[in-house]
Amino acid sequence: MIVVMNGSANQGDVEKIIDELKSMGLDINISRGEKRTVLGIIGDTSILESFPFYAYSGVEKVLRVLKPYKLASREFKDKRTTIRLKGINIGGRELAIIAGPCAIENEEQIFTIAEELSKLGIKILRGGAFKPRTSPYSFQGLGKEGLKLMSQAAREFGLLVITEVMSVNQVDLISEYADILQVGTRNMQNFMLLKELGRIKKPVMLKRGMSATFEELLLSAEHILSNGNKEVILCERGIRTFETYTRNTLDLSAVPSLKELSHLPVIVDPSHGTGRWKLVGPMAKSAIVAGADGLIIEVHPNPRASLSDGAQTLNFKKFNHLLKEISAIAHVIGREMNITSHVK
Amino acid sequence: MIVVMNGSANQGDVEKIIDELKSMGLDINISRGEKRTVLGIIGDTSILESFPFYAYSGVEKVLRVLKPYKLASREFKDKRTTIRLKGINIGGRELAIIAGPCAIENEEQIFTIAEELSKLGIKILRGGAFKPRTSPYSFQGLGKEGLKLMSQAAREFGLLVITEVMSVNQVDLISEYADILQVGTRNMQNFMLLKELGRIKKPVMLKRGMSATFEELLLSAEHILSNGNKEVILCERGIRTFETYTRNTLDLSAVPSLKELSHLPVIVDPSHGTGRWKLVGPMAKSAIVAGADGLIIEVHPNPRASLSDGAQTLNFKKFNHLLKEISAIAHVIGREMNITSHVK
Amino acid sequence: MIVVMNGSANQGDVEKIIDELKSMGLDINISRGEKRTVLGIIGDTSILESFPFYAYSGVEKVLRVLKPYKLASREFKDKRTTIRLKGINIGGRELAIIAGPCAIENEEQIFTIAEELSKLGIKILRGGAFKPRTSPYSFQGLGKEGLKLMSQAAREFGLLVITEVMSVNQVDLISEYADILQVGTRNMQNFMLLKELGRIKKPVMLKRGMSATFEELLLSAEHILSNGNKEVILCERGIRTFETYTRNTLDLSAVPSLKELSHLPVIVDPSHGTGRWKLVGPMAKSAIVAGADGLIIEVHPNPRASLSDGAQTLNFKKFNHLLKEISAIAHVIGREMNITSHVK
Amino acid sequence: MIVVMNGSANQGDVEKIIDELKSMGLDINISRGEKRTVLGIIGDTSILESFPFYAYSGVEKVLRVLKPYKLASREFKDKRTTIRLKGINIGGRELAIIAGPCAIENEEQIFTIAEELSKLGIKILRGGAFKPRTSPYSFQGLGKEGLKLMSQAAREFGLLVITEVMSVNQVDLISEYADILQVGTRNMQNFMLLKELGRIKKPVMLKRGMSATFEELLLSAEHILSNGNKEVILCERGIRTFETYTRNTLDLSAVPSLKELSHLPVIVDPSHGTGRWKLVGPMAKSAIVAGADGLIIEVHPNPRASLSDGAQTLNFKKFNHLLKEISAIAHVIGREMNITSHVK
Repeated sequence: MIVVMNGSANQGDVEKIIDELKSMGLDINISRGEKRTVLGIIGDTSILESFPFYAYSGVEKVLRVLKPYKLASREFKDKRTTIRLKGINIGGRELAIIAGPCAIENEEQIFTIAEELSKLGIKILRGGAFKPRTSPYSFQGLGKEGLKLMSQAAREFGLLVITEVMSVNQVDLISEYADILQVGTRNMQNFMLLKELGRIKKPVMLKRGMSATFEELLLSAEHILSNGNKEVILCERGIRTFETYTRNTLDLSAVPSLKELSHLPVIVDPSHGTGRWKLVGPMAKSAIVAGADGLIIEVHPNPRASLSDGAQTLNFKKFNHLLKEISAIAHVIGREMNITSHVK
Repeated sequence: MIVVMNGSANQGDVEKIIDELKSMGLDINISRGEKRTVLGIIGDTSILESFPFYAYSGVEKVLRVLKPYKLASREFKDKRTTIRLKGINIGGRELAIIAGPCAIENEEQIFTIAEELSKLGIKILRGGAFKPRTSPYSFQGLGKEGLKLMSQAAREFGLLVITEVMSVNQVDLISEYADILQVGTRNMQNFMLLKELGRIKKPVMLKRGMSATFEELLLSAEHILSNGNKEVILCERGIRTFETYTRNTLDLSAVPSLKELSHLPVIVDPSHGTGRWKLVGPMAKSAIVAGADGLIIEVHPNPRASLSDGAQTLNFKKFNHLLKEISAIAHVIGREMNITSHVK
Repeated sequence: MIVVMNGSANQGDVEKIIDELKSMGLDINISRGEKRTVLGIIGDTSILESFPFYAYSGVEKVLRVLKPYKLASREFKDKRTTIRLKGINIGGRELAIIAGPCAIENEEQIFTIAEELSKLGIKILRGGAFKPRTSPYSFQGLGKEGLKLMSQAAREFGLLVITEVMSVNQVDLISEYADILQVGTRNMQNFMLLKELGRIKKPVMLKRGMSATFEELLLSAEHILSNGNKEVILCERGIRTFETYTRNTLDLSAVPSLKELSHLPVIVDPSHGTGRWKLVGPMAKSAIVAGADGLIIEVHPNPRASLSDGAQTLNFKKFNHLLKEISAIAHVIGREMNITSHVK
Repeated sequence: MIVVMNGSANQGDVEKIIDELKSMGLDINISRGEKRTVLGIIGDTSILESFPFYAYSGVEKVLRVLKPYKLASREFKDKRTTIRLKGINIGGRELAIIAGPCAIENEEQIFTIAEELSKLGIKILRGGAFKPRTSPYSFQGLGKEGLKLMSQAAREFGLLVITEVMSVNQVDLISEYADILQVGTRNMQNFMLLKELGRIKKPVMLKRGMSATFEELLLSAEHILSNGNKEVILCERGIRTFETYTRNTLDLSAVPSLKELSHLPVIVDPSHGTGRWKLVGPMAKSAIVAGADGLIIEVHPNPRASLSDGAQTLNFKKFNHLLKEISAIAHVIGREMNITSHVK
């Protein structure tokens, strides 16, 4: 950690802060330039996490040298994390394609979808039972009933289940039905939930908050990792910007960046990331080329009749076509898609 | 609700969507311009909340006519909401000044602060017992022990207590100790928590999410209101922008805007809104002139020794000075500050 | 154009605005809902461009039905624009790869680069002679001398030249040396410059402003098109967001979006879009898969010694490797790269 | 300047960069921590403005110690700059209230406005002759004719004139008619224009770019200052965020921040800053309390009939009322308004 004293800081100011830091067991390297004195703090600076530097007079800037997350970093673990789950690998050569409806609507819908997806070679079924909705007047999901239907459909067609957990008191219930628990963008900094998810034995897919930096996303992952759960999947799903044509701005540079900073697998959600079905295909393919370990895509037999997010949802035909395109691209860049044989 | 068909939509496209909407009991006003056909939907459009317009071919744009929130709106209730609480009014002529430390650290700290604040005429004590921290390695708060200490200190010096609730399963515990429950910026769209808070009998102060629009803030308030709790206080605390000099960008235009759109009281947090104590004073005064019904300010006997957010915290002397300035300004704009008599 | 009257607008308010619009020769379709009256304006609404709707009492919202740009739109011209330039096509099946240094530094540098690029099969050389620099103390470019050197080097090795024009009074000078004139992100709304560029006979590459929406970019293109120059190339180069790890946030969804909205070719700049050379490759390849018609990439024989933007610059070896990867991908998605034969 | 080497940088990496820096005449302070080596560069680091640190292997982060602007900084000149202009002071105790129409429309309009404003005690008339308009189809201003009319009206009623300059080749023309030249938000980084304005003898009001940080605004001021013109007025006019209810997000924390960082006067534009006339009053008053040295406000005899920006324009009655309110507030905070005597 580096402390830059401002131009009018006097000797007393510098000494006061040095004394304080030394009393905490730290060493200080002092560098006096013509216009600024700069203090380099040496030792275990993690104890300075909450140190109120700016409350000291003469302090102009505090610059962090080390990354604030540890377990999520490539420095802690350079080898990429691969999550193995009933024959599926997330984070290896193989691409993980997760598909399904935004919300589970009824038995027929989810069974139809599960069947069609399994025919296409899809291995992981998504679907919301509890839906975080901006308006209290929108469809809020089927709740526990939805979980049951989804889990039955998945079992019937040999699929794994991923679904969203919105609250600490849902963790047990959802763990019972889901193979992977998803934390939505609005809960990326719901720290009580993250801690709780650190204590379970199932993988967690953590979506980037709508206005979260890469560092904040990795710090949220760190909340889960540091509580004991090593199976975290990161998910880029678009950030909030001034642009209104797209629902969010899908930040594909997050993919190579996160893979540079962390060993965790990275999945991309082009459906929420764009909010427009015409953009889902191009962004899905781009994401793979950018290095994504997989995709999560909204698919529905009849997007017009879907109870939520129809605007960004693909029907089976479009999805099937997209899978073929992804497959051709995956081949060129040295990734595998274990579903190619199924796609005609 | 208005649906704009695109330039290449044909008669069949227009009819298909009209038929569907009519089958839902809605009336349609058709306006055919030279380049576009525009459909005005008449009737109870709230049933269209999740209608997938964009999944219909030929639809270019859907424009909402009515605001998506109701109970929070001035149209629903034009008279301003005043929250009355043991002799305090929030939302009336009187300004509500809430003060206290970022986090409760120990008995001595919170009792000292409570005593000093009560001497200055402050009526509401803030302080975090459960702290939402970006890093799992930062001080996370004293938890239940902190709640107890804060509540004892408040009782001793005749103060009300406001503190943050971070999770559904904390609602009961915190309701026991707090007079007002605070929802932090990271939980503004923690809908499970909002619903739960809709069922309690205590006021809730809802902070604007870091990247939430006014409309989304009001929709989150609607989650609480529509579950039965009418006592919601809105709080502007800065939004996330590209500027890095300030911790957040305090959006003071939120104050007159929210008061135009809603009847709910609006409080401003200049401490988190700026992240720099030198800016707290100017922004606090500005907020009052912009029409804020009160302020929430971080105060600590020794900001340098505070365990969190010292950079944005005022000491008693600076806070006392600020109160005098606010008091002088309040007088000019026709607001009252029931603490003026105490300020020397 | 649609005008939504607010809930408390009375009959007089509605009539006043209708009378005014009718007096301008427009027809009005009135749709009275339970809570709102909505006016659909029919006729040539372009005359309402500056109409102060919100100054009328009772007006709640004005919603635009037609896109505000015309010549740039797919509705005006559905067939994609291809710019043909001395054997190069920009906007066709063929990908246009533009490469070169951030700034022209001296004769040796630019001749070396031109020679190497021509060996790799590159056809268009980029390089700044006049540099827009945030700080007045940074290297500002060689100016006219740089233009001459670049133009000589390009001629020697059979390359076309693209370089930035920063001001109205540079248009003639730069037109003399460049084949394509580039408008930088900071000048996207320098309307005097755009107008001037509308009068020349050379293609213009218009970079998206750092905080410009797709619509604003297309309106800036419209300034050029409506002044007579039909050869505009759009360029996505990253937008400003809260993320600080990357220099900008490259918005690849701009590619399919702009190609949906407009017939103009779209180029991507992954160098400025990310600011980090490690991200240039992944984003370059992603951009092509997203549908970009080409790329503009910073290349320098020795990025460490470059006088500007070395951090985001590739050396020849890395660039050559990237070209091979792009070539393989282009093949799969049905695009051509006329340089493949040169790449070993 | 500080260079943080990454965890895997080896001795050779460190030496290579040290050698290079030493060869440029700089001293290096080396601080070796457990996980990182940190280099403090001592000497005239301004020569490193374009140094490609990130092109060196092993470099993780470069942290700037000194502010990149000089002449604009408080360190260079602590005493506040006051611009004296025919009896008006901008930047002193006195508040500068600038008012007038968005655009000059015709003789009658501008003479009426000039007369009314002079009666209210206003000393500086704003008005656009050349208008930067997003759409080429909007009213572009009267041009030179507008300048003449405005200048005649101002002379007739003893007012100073401020108007926008959009291009290098307009500087002479506009200098002839205007007392203060305004640079709009879209030209804040039109560096050719800034340089040219550095060579004139008239004050320049520089508006903050829509997505410019405080530092970038001050660097743009530095472009003017370093070319010889010391009379620069900064103007906060709102930044672009995700919020759509307001036209821009007026960042009032810019006022105390810029006054902390710089000695230059700071003016606020609540008209463009909000885009809604109902918000102009509250934000104007707030700005003054935040420490602004003045305001620039759009006023028109009949906002409904104005040819641009009517939505955010006050009529004389509302403006007069606002002046009274500002006057009362100014008094309390120790600022003067030399127009109070005129306001009834």
